[in-house]
Amino acid sequence: MLKLSPVREQAVRAREVARKLATLSTGQKNTALATMASRLRASREALLSANQRDLEAGQQQQMSAALLDRLRLTPQRIEAMAVSTEEVMRLADPVGVMEGWTRPNGLEIRRLRVPLGVLAMIYEARPNVTVEASGLAFKAGNACLLRGSSSARHSNQALVDLLQQALREVGLPPEAIQGVAEAGRESVDELATMNGLVDCIIPRGGHELIQRVISTATVPVIETGVGNCHLYVHEDANLAMALDILDNGKTSRPAVCNALETLLVHRALAERFLPLVSERLSAKDVELRGCPNTCQLLSEARPASDSDWDKEFLELILAVRVVDGLDEAIAHINRHGTSHSEAIVTASREVARRFQREVDACAVYVNASTRFTDGGEFGFGAEIGISTQRMHARGPLGLNELTTTKYLIDGDGQIRV
Amino acid sequence: MLKLSPVREQAVRAREVARKLATLSTGQKNTALATMASRLRASREALLSANQRDLEAGQQQQMSAALLDRLRLTPQRIEAMAVSTEEVMRLADPVGVMEGWTRPNGLEIRRLRVPLGVLAMIYEARPNVTVEASGLAFKAGNACLLRGSSSARHSNQALVDLLQQALREVGLPPEAIQGVAEAGRESVDELATMNGLVDCIIPRGGHELIQRVISTATVPVIETGVGNCHLYVHEDANLAMALDILDNGKTSRPAVCNALETLLVHRALAERFLPLVSERLSAKDVELRGCPNTCQLLSEARPASDSDWDKEFLELILAVRVVDGLDEAIAHINRHGTSHSEAIVTASREVARRFQREVDACAVYVNASTRFTDGGEFGFGAEIGISTQRMHARGPLGLNELTTTKYLIDGDGQIRV
Repeated sequence: MLKLSPVREQAVRAREVARKLATLSTGQKNTALATMASRLRASREALLSANQRDLEAGQQQQMSAALLDRLRLTPQRIEAMAVSTEEVMRLADPVGVMEGWTRPNGLEIRRLRVPLGVLAMIYEARPNVTVEASGLAFKAGNACLLRGSSSARHSNQALVDLLQQALREVGLPPEAIQGVAEAGRESVDELATMNGLVDCIIPRGGHELIQRVISTATVPVIETGVGNCHLYVHEDANLAMALDILDNGKTSRPAVCNALETLLVHRALAERFLPLVSERLSAKDVELRGCPNTCQLLSEARPASDSDWDKEFLELILAVRVVDGLDEAIAHINRHGTSHSEAIVTASREVARRFQREVDACAVYVNASTRFTDGGEFGFGAEIGISTQRMHARGPLGLNELTTTKYLIDGDGQIRV
Repeated sequence: MLKLSPVREQAVRAREVARKLATLSTGQKNTALATMASRLRASREALLSANQRDLEAGQQQQMSAALLDRLRLTPQRIEAMAVSTEEVMRLADPVGVMEGWTRPNGLEIRRLRVPLGVLAMIYEARPNVTVEASGLAFKAGNACLLRGSSSARHSNQALVDLLQQALREVGLPPEAIQGVAEAGRESVDELATMNGLVDCIIPRGGHELIQRVISTATVPVIETGVGNCHLYVHEDANLAMALDILDNGKTSRPAVCNALETLLVHRALAERFLPLVSERLSAKDVELRGCPNTCQLLSEARPASDSDWDKEFLELILAVRVVDGLDEAIAHINRHGTSHSEAIVTASREVARRFQREVDACAVYVNASTRFTDGGEFGFGAEIGISTQRMHARGPLGLNELTTTKYLIDGDGQIRV
């Protein structure tokens, strides 16, 4: 008999339980989620000690302070995971009838949301993703295979163990949430090509990880995350507002996908506005990389290279370009953007309207920070990532986006003539 | 300078006009569609004569009568194309605001449906697809590249010419609807890999065509069409109703994807029902391929081979299997089905409910024919195909399924704290 690889065996079990998960009631799912939250709180010491092993290994491998911080669990972070699980519990169940109608021949058609099936999540160091992703996948009735990074393996294993205990405790199959133990990239490649067993693969992390999954995957991928986000300041902008939005977009959390990377400034206010930009951001150690016009006005700006316009810096660097107006701003964004989040500051209704209509991105802001592109901030509750693709789902991926649909048709003998 | 291939040049032009198409008003699109319908009626003679050239070439190449019939245009079929274009005109415009809400911080969020962008359609002999696909793509604000089969090339060319004349007549760019002239499979491969220029490729036709597109595509594909559809007759079924639904499913149009391929019969009524099946279907020259039980009961049935359970016959052949009950029927369907259309005949509410919940398909019927899986029959108006995939769209693909979404967020200086 053919011996299956460990990952494939896990996927076969996930496929089996997925059918059962699809038929669970909202009450059953919520009870399980509540139990998961309790288990998280009750397992604090075990989680901290598993996490300690990952942190020690990370230190031995000279992991950077920033990465170690992402990896670290604290009592507060564990409590936050429990709270987020309870929040997912309180979200409306996406599974069920979404609409229905009757046809002239008496056929009654109902359209149902149903789970996608088996989701594979590929993600990097932060262990909280293990809890968030599995909670959302489970609430939408999906089985999930979680492939976190090896640097968080003890933390992730401890988390999956307790989530599975919670499932057992309420009489549900623990295989609904499985951690993929195999280290190495082979398990990612395998998950990405298990057509028939995996219905969808969602990479969550840096550009390299996402590109690797996209290039190898034969199962459908939901692309998430890469954001080369712009702020365009129009000539009629309220400059104090523009500075606040710029500062918030660039410095509040530079390493996330909805952070700003490029500032576009209308020529008419460059001379007035750019010194204010430099003053505000230099206080926060932001490096400016400018177009020739910018560099002329700001001696402290370094010249931007051609590739800087396409970079997701994810750190305290801002590319700055002076543009002739709205058309040039829109053209720049549609050429260099990644269809994530784009913003304008303007007082003009017409300019705002054109910017929102013509910029091709999942979220287009007028007089607000790009940092709001987030399932929680949009009011969807937790999210599993931000989709920058056009098919299936675009923008913050909430529970609805983890489902597909199905038509149920009821008749009393209708045939088609 | 790099010379682009002719197909790529067309795609570049489609990309350029797609942005303009996305901003058209419903009125502008409807005027264009009305003009297309008029042009179709006015160009009857030219269309018939172009079609005559294709028919003659087909006859010379010994094309089968069935294929020649699919290829043939008649005054009635031309009128039907004009009528279907007017129907698309009357459908609600999918582009625009679909919902909106205000967040506690005052941010106003609107969710818009926006066009997918550039669609590539790959299809086989029927020239009416040229008109239907381009009408739907256009109404949803997309540019389209139409790659029909070379056997219909004069007909398709004449149709695209008149659609483009209609666009010019109302002042819109004719590149919104382009025929891909290159014969040969290379143009299909090229369209399927033009990431950045083609947003979605939709193959419409036989299994081989669809598989070829899926295996070569790097742009997103919407899979359509393959239907290995089942009818399960439960022990409490109204047998007259079951016979009508079976007959309609198998014989009304055997070559389409929502036709029946396999009959599953509850053991308790096999002895009574199967002779009625044989009587009803033998009058229509349907060949029966049965499981051992079926062959025992019906001497006229040939033994089914293992592969018959997985075949989309698309002709007057029916596989027949006796099952122990609902569980076995559901298991058979979930194993051999293609997630298209599945039906049960039963008097029991509970059995119907379990069948609809547990069968994994885009459309699950109780006491009605699978032949109803069709955008028109569902009330969506025209459709561009039936999706059997889980991601993006499942079931009949109407206008909404040819769009994506975009969030517009309006504030007055909000930043994220």
